[in-house]
Amino acid sequence: MTRFVAPGQCGNPVFLIFHLLPFCHAKRMPHITAEIISIGDEMITGARLDTNTQWLSQRLGELGVDVQFHSTVGDTLSHNTDVFRIAARRADIVVATGGLGPTRDDLTREAIAESLGLPLQLHEPSLEFIRSMFQRRGREMPERNSCQAMFPLGATPIHNPQGTAPGIDIIAPREDGTQSRIFALPGVPAEMKTMFDETVAAAVLASNGQRQHIAHHIMKFFGIGESDMEQRLGDMIARDRQPRVGITVSAATISLRIVATGDSPEECESAIAKTRAEILDQAGEFYFGDGETFEQHHAVIRHLNKIGQRLLLVELGRAAPLGDRFAAVSDEPGFTADVPAFVGGISLADVEDLRQWTGMPQDASAESCLTALQKRLSADWVLLVDEYPSLHRTSDHPLPGSDVTFTVAAPDGTFPSQTQHLGAHPSILHARVAKAGLFWLRKCFAAATSGV
Amino acid sequence: MTRFVAPGQCGNPVFLIFHLLPFCHAKRMPHITAEIISIGDEMITGARLDTNTQWLSQRLGELGVDVQFHSTVGDTLSHNTDVFRIAARRADIVVATGGLGPTRDDLTREAIAESLGLPLQLHEPSLEFIRSMFQRRGREMPERNSCQAMFPLGATPIHNPQGTAPGIDIIAPREDGTQSRIFALPGVPAEMKTMFDETVAAAVLASNGQRQHIAHHIMKFFGIGESDMEQRLGDMIARDRQPRVGITVSAATISLRIVATGDSPEECESAIAKTRAEILDQAGEFYFGDGETFEQHHAVIRHLNKIGQRLLLVELGRAAPLGDRFAAVSDEPGFTADVPAFVGGISLADVEDLRQWTGMPQDASAESCLTALQKRLSADWVLLVDEYPSLHRTSDHPLPGSDVTFTVAAPDGTFPSQTQHLGAHPSILHARVAKAGLFWLRKCFAAATSGV
Repeated sequence: MTRFVAPGQCGNPVFLIFHLLPFCHAKRMPHITAEIISIGDEMITGARLDTNTQWLSQRLGELGVDVQFHSTVGDTLSHNTDVFRIAARRADIVVATGGLGPTRDDLTREAIAESLGLPLQLHEPSLEFIRSMFQRRGREMPERNSCQAMFPLGATPIHNPQGTAPGIDIIAPREDGTQSRIFALPGVPAEMKTMFDETVAAAVLASNGQRQHIAHHIMKFFGIGESDMEQRLGDMIARDRQPRVGITVSAATISLRIVATGDSPEECESAIAKTRAEILDQAGEFYFGDGETFEQHHAVIRHLNKIGQRLLLVELGRAAPLGDRFAAVSDEPGFTADVPAFVGGISLADVEDLRQWTGMPQDASAESCLTALQKRLSADWVLLVDEYPSLHRTSDHPLPGSDVTFTVAAPDGTFPSQTQHLGAHPSILHARVAKAGLFWLRKCFAAATSGV
Repeated sequence: MTRFVAPGQCGNPVFLIFHLLPFCHAKRMPHITAEIISIGDEMITGARLDTNTQWLSQRLGELGVDVQFHSTVGDTLSHNTDVFRIAARRADIVVATGGLGPTRDDLTREAIAESLGLPLQLHEPSLEFIRSMFQRRGREMPERNSCQAMFPLGATPIHNPQGTAPGIDIIAPREDGTQSRIFALPGVPAEMKTMFDETVAAAVLASNGQRQHIAHHIMKFFGIGESDMEQRLGDMIARDRQPRVGITVSAATISLRIVATGDSPEECESAIAKTRAEILDQAGEFYFGDGETFEQHHAVIRHLNKIGQRLLLVELGRAAPLGDRFAAVSDEPGFTADVPAFVGGISLADVEDLRQWTGMPQDASAESCLTALQKRLSADWVLLVDEYPSLHRTSDHPLPGSDVTFTVAAPDGTFPSQTQHLGAHPSILHARVAKAGLFWLRKCFAAATSGV
């Protein structure tokens, strides 16, 4: 969960100290400003949605950098040259993505060189590396790929462990004696992210006069609102705190991202551990796990694997989002067990259909249907969501809230149940209902474990 | 499905003819260039992903406009002023979103005025309209909302039927005698899209010397690849064709967007109908419906409603994406019927679990399990997907393809079945398998209907 980044991995020690900039006037503004450039016809025409820029904005913000501009251009040399020239004039750090491939459309190398008035030069070690990438795949390097080893004079290549396109790290001097620093990375998100984390982040920190090691850690919470969380955290979310703590919310799940910088990985790790413990003190009851992609259904499967029990889902109404998630997670590395914790899921319209499904008489209770299923399918737990609301029942916008009841059939023969009034924007309402159901199931797990 | 846009809806006749621009040199380039500006701290910090710009890029492209730059800035006046100044210098049309709200963070009005050296002036009819919006909601207009009726001198307000923020339409003259035209719209996507479709699109067409009515129509296809589709369409997808036909692909579903311009809505409609018929001639066997959000599961439910029959889903393996989609669609306006066409769905690990579920002996065939379910739940059709592949079984990237078998239990007691070798990027593999299953089900529907 904790990623470390060591500086200078491509042999480029980062000791550059930036000049203080005239437009860094506000008191709490970070001292370093940035512009992000995204390059490609697929972006400028709207054929593809650019997500690289959002990711880079978040990461640069965590490093204390003030991102002020995003620019996007297509594969046209003059437009690219213009955009690099403007960016180097107004931002201390420029991070560009795209245009580093081997085809004639890939113009970032030329655009940077032209905007700085520099020639392109072959970098032999990069050419060797690209050739070896092809050799490992049992192929000969096509001649056109050699252009990927061309760099504007004075640039430092940025190592790309996953692909044939090295990145470019180069200083852009300004007429007034100050300077900007340009980092150009490939547009492929996986390559871009690795190169940013492994090389660019440390260089940016050094530019910012900060210590050169950085580590991240993400904690996940459900059942608490954003403003309530902010209140509980108090000074922990101050922008100038070390480590920084950032909040993001996605469909009612809160992520806290802890970012620590220090002189060594150990220093970062111990700072993160201390902040993590402080956060658990304040909001531990809503915490369910760590890591960007860790969700409540992961926590449920992990718990079931630990205690050797199995879960069946029954989703009624106008949605069934949980079945797909549990089917997929029961297969992820670290979440599998000899006996699968997820038995399966049923999606039906209402309790009447559930009676027909289980072969129960018309006056049978929902609970007796759950017991029948529990026995027939050797499930220890059943979670019944009754029911997912319609997104179309009125023309109101946003939708009014709905009462949704979550009933759990527990291994001890009890049926702990809770009714909640839930409302949200239609695009996240079903996800929110599903998550509230899992929150109730986890409470039932806790009660069973503690013997309450 | 077909949207019409009439010009001049906010009393702003659009007769502006643009000067030919020096950098429009390439032969097949459209003559009008554009820049899109997105404004807001939530975008520049990466807290929110900007989707407005992608949507606008696609719409402007359809109007024959060459989008060359996207720019994003936060809520800082000097940055906004800079960005508008640069955009008006290099693009014929500038479309901005965001910064038109009533708070102190909303700076688009000031930024445009300042970039053009113009004062802000109160527009009384807009103030009246904003006041009436509040009255209709039974509230008094807060004083701060009056700033939303302030416009740079000479601007034309753009009518916003859904919100309190009118848009801004203003000419930006350049030193060389040419000019740019700026349209500023709110950042709320629903308001922005309506205002673009109802007002800006017609103004852009007029600027481009084209006829002032425009209509769109979207056709959806599955089972054919993008390049095969392009080949079948031939000259229909040429950029200078009228109506234009654009292709986009999303998780193996192809959308063809027909965009017609003309002197009247009727002229547009008849041009679209003609092109639509030509497309059906070339690729009709893969067509399943019309409209941006129409998917194969809509086509399945519509067909079942028409013939008064019911479907049950059985999804095995490491995913169950169809249950949620069918549960949700069975409730959409136009897809409901007295007897619900979607019985429900089951998600289980494998055929062995299906036997246990249906209470069949260990040597029972999958088909006999389907028949048992068909009877017990009064389903006419059952679709069995066996099985969704794991996304985690190897470290290969991309994943190798998998054999997936689709078995249909038909009302006549037969079990038409097909095995396909399916591969795709992990992010779309399960969706692709699900769609291939629905394609097979629709083939079985067709065979049953035609008596084959």
